[in-house]
Amino acid sequence: MANLNDPALRSWIDIPPTSDFPIQNLPFGVFETDERGPHLGVAIGEYVLDLYAVAQFGFFSDLDLGPKMPKVFRRRSLNQFIALGRPAWRAVRQRVSELLRHDNPALSSSLEVMRECLVRQSEARMLRPIKPQNYTDFYSSIEHATNVGMMFRDPANALLPNWRHIPIGYHGRASSIVVSGTNIRRPNGQRKAPDVAAPTFGPSQQLDFELEMAFVVGKGTELGATVPLTEAEDHIFGLMLFNDWSARDIQSWEYVPLGPFLGKSFGSSVSPWVVTLDALEPFRVAGPGQEPEPLPYLAQSNPHNFDIKLEVAIQPENGEETVVSRSNFGLMYWSMAQQLTHQSSNGCNLEVGDVYASGTISGATPDSLGSMLELAWKGTRPVPLADGSERKFLLDGDTVTMRGYCERDGLRIGFGEVTGTVLPANSL
Amino acid sequence: MANLNDPALRSWIDIPPTSDFPIQNLPFGVFETDERGPHLGVAIGEYVLDLYAVAQFGFFSDLDLGPKMPKVFRRRSLNQFIALGRPAWRAVRQRVSELLRHDNPALSSSLEVMRECLVRQSEARMLRPIKPQNYTDFYSSIEHATNVGMMFRDPANALLPNWRHIPIGYHGRASSIVVSGTNIRRPNGQRKAPDVAAPTFGPSQQLDFELEMAFVVGKGTELGATVPLTEAEDHIFGLMLFNDWSARDIQSWEYVPLGPFLGKSFGSSVSPWVVTLDALEPFRVAGPGQEPEPLPYLAQSNPHNFDIKLEVAIQPENGEETVVSRSNFGLMYWSMAQQLTHQSSNGCNLEVGDVYASGTISGATPDSLGSMLELAWKGTRPVPLADGSERKFLLDGDTVTMRGYCERDGLRIGFGEVTGTVLPANSL
Repeated sequence: MANLNDPALRSWIDIPPTSDFPIQNLPFGVFETDERGPHLGVAIGEYVLDLYAVAQFGFFSDLDLGPKMPKVFRRRSLNQFIALGRPAWRAVRQRVSELLRHDNPALSSSLEVMRECLVRQSEARMLRPIKPQNYTDFYSSIEHATNVGMMFRDPANALLPNWRHIPIGYHGRASSIVVSGTNIRRPNGQRKAPDVAAPTFGPSQQLDFELEMAFVVGKGTELGATVPLTEAEDHIFGLMLFNDWSARDIQSWEYVPLGPFLGKSFGSSVSPWVVTLDALEPFRVAGPGQEPEPLPYLAQSNPHNFDIKLEVAIQPENGEETVVSRSNFGLMYWSMAQQLTHQSSNGCNLEVGDVYASGTISGATPDSLGSMLELAWKGTRPVPLADGSERKFLLDGDTVTMRGYCERDGLRIGFGEVTGTVLPANSL
Repeated sequence: MANLNDPALRSWIDIPPTSDFPIQNLPFGVFETDERGPHLGVAIGEYVLDLYAVAQFGFFSDLDLGPKMPKVFRRRSLNQFIALGRPAWRAVRQRVSELLRHDNPALSSSLEVMRECLVRQSEARMLRPIKPQNYTDFYSSIEHATNVGMMFRDPANALLPNWRHIPIGYHGRASSIVVSGTNIRRPNGQRKAPDVAAPTFGPSQQLDFELEMAFVVGKGTELGATVPLTEAEDHIFGLMLFNDWSARDIQSWEYVPLGPFLGKSFGSSVSPWVVTLDALEPFRVAGPGQEPEPLPYLAQSNPHNFDIKLEVAIQPENGEETVVSRSNFGLMYWSMAQQLTHQSSNGCNLEVGDVYASGTISGATPDSLGSMLELAWKGTRPVPLADGSERKFLLDGDTVTMRGYCERDGLRIGFGEVTGTVLPANSL
């Protein structure tokens, strides 16, 4: 098989060097326009390649994609396509790469074919790429867990005793995962300040973002089965940017003893493009050392982290954008492989379309923290914005945008962005 | 509309007075046999009424069930049927009641029709009735929360400060919800005894059940919408028995600070029949008094609890069964209406097929506790079984069976049972 990640590959489509979507990326998503869709698509430069149209022209006919072809490309989510299995995703990605190569005239020689198969991203409405079957949110950045422990528990013992032994995580709410661009309404909820006797119900005063990545499960398991760490990545289809919006005041009042609930479930945002693990292969790196050594079922000898540069920007309603944080997914203490193996270690069955978020990705420096809670250190050091205002937490009208990309040797593989604007709370 | 709950109603099918499924109940489920299915069905005495067969004979043709008829009755779950909406469920339940009434010859006058429409329950394999979209487990028994707080935290302050203000709950794992009769494999996992330095990985030594009820959402909401308490029950289709299997040693090591995770996600069992809220109407009761008064969004003036008698039995591999607990769903401090309203109070969207479990239903007396943890009080007072053995927690080969029914004025509305047998852990 040709190396689809070869930096020398070129497309007949003109792709700016700063694009997140060169021919080496080819992430999958779901889109619609006024005239078509929802169809599955692949991002290429400033275009979407319409996979349903490509299939209709017969370009996938010799691939072994089963009886659901071409209907599988005319769906509201990637789930059915992903369920075809890794050989199918790889065959489609390879064929798309071939069709887009600079020396292949199959698509590019016919204006009619091109018009059917290519849609400008500016004309496409992106849908939530995955129907999330189950959603787990991990807590795998040691810097983030330490920061939160310092603020809310004991600065001298910020990390809880289990943290270095377990990829701590909790089940999140799948229904409220939305695609980038969806507005997020400030939640109402119960919150109680330490100095008052009783809680009150009203708009959260501590609305926050959390900078995360999430992976999508591409291969399920039966109840009772477990996944050894060496096979964990076989179960991963790809990754998305993930904003785990959080209401800190609701969360801190409700979370003992059963964990976060309504402080999170009002909305989580994902980027529209799922970048395959295959496309990220050149950016594999070792994570930080783990001390003590994990128990044998979590031991990993090969690098299972990925060097993905991340940033978060806040744009006030009538102001310009300020980048408030720059972090990196390669910093994560627990890898995706360890998370997935842990999740299945008790026999819990995985399903195609499961979403597993990383937890907030914070670095060691003050400008690499992945939440307002940490950036403004519980409100004690407000974050200045370019328009002269400052933030302890998010205000109504603020737009939060997260971006991520890998870059090495002139090759850039990007995720695009996940963005959302805060709407005022419902009136009571 | 006729009163479908009238105790005087009789069927032409001979139904023993101790049956859970008289003509006043008519719970919905999904079944298959060697020859047919999966089809939706209704339990009646010792039979299943095959709704797909009934539809094929045209008995639903004059009902307004939409274009998915009769396919909606030939499905692997009730979800699509439930999504038709309350008028459709009620129309079907009313028609089924009419067809089964002692004075209606429509079904009973033809052997051929009867043979197509009725299946013995002993010949039907019941499937999981619901594809759970999202699963929340509440913690709404004040006795259970107090007991757990006494054992694990502070006996003098057993209830946490938020408990009387919030129907505390957490997101659970939807994928591992299984139907009654499914064996449950003892999970492996990390656990750490207080007196050792580091955790080990192996079979849970503290496998437990939790006696719960769960309701199924029948009407969803849009993200950002909330459900006032007075409308909460409009969103409930019906109830099931629920066994929230728990591994206490895994749970106690992992659950701080984000809540239960792998100590629960290895399996949860539901009864195969979903009893509609309509069928339970005669058994509505007020719950215990709430002090302090809940915040206005959770205030309820009418009775929202249901008097459902519950029991748990353990049967060792080669022994007879012992009933170890008798409790009642009417005891719950927080009602289902309060749970649902709270769940949606931050704008979290509900989906048809959501499952909301009550939390362990413990009474005030030692023989009404809903888990082994409480019955054997953390292993300090082992529970004697009829075969002379005793239990601190569950052993391999133990079968746990939960049963539930309402009874008043000679009318009995039952749930059947939810049962499961513990299999040995996977070898490491």
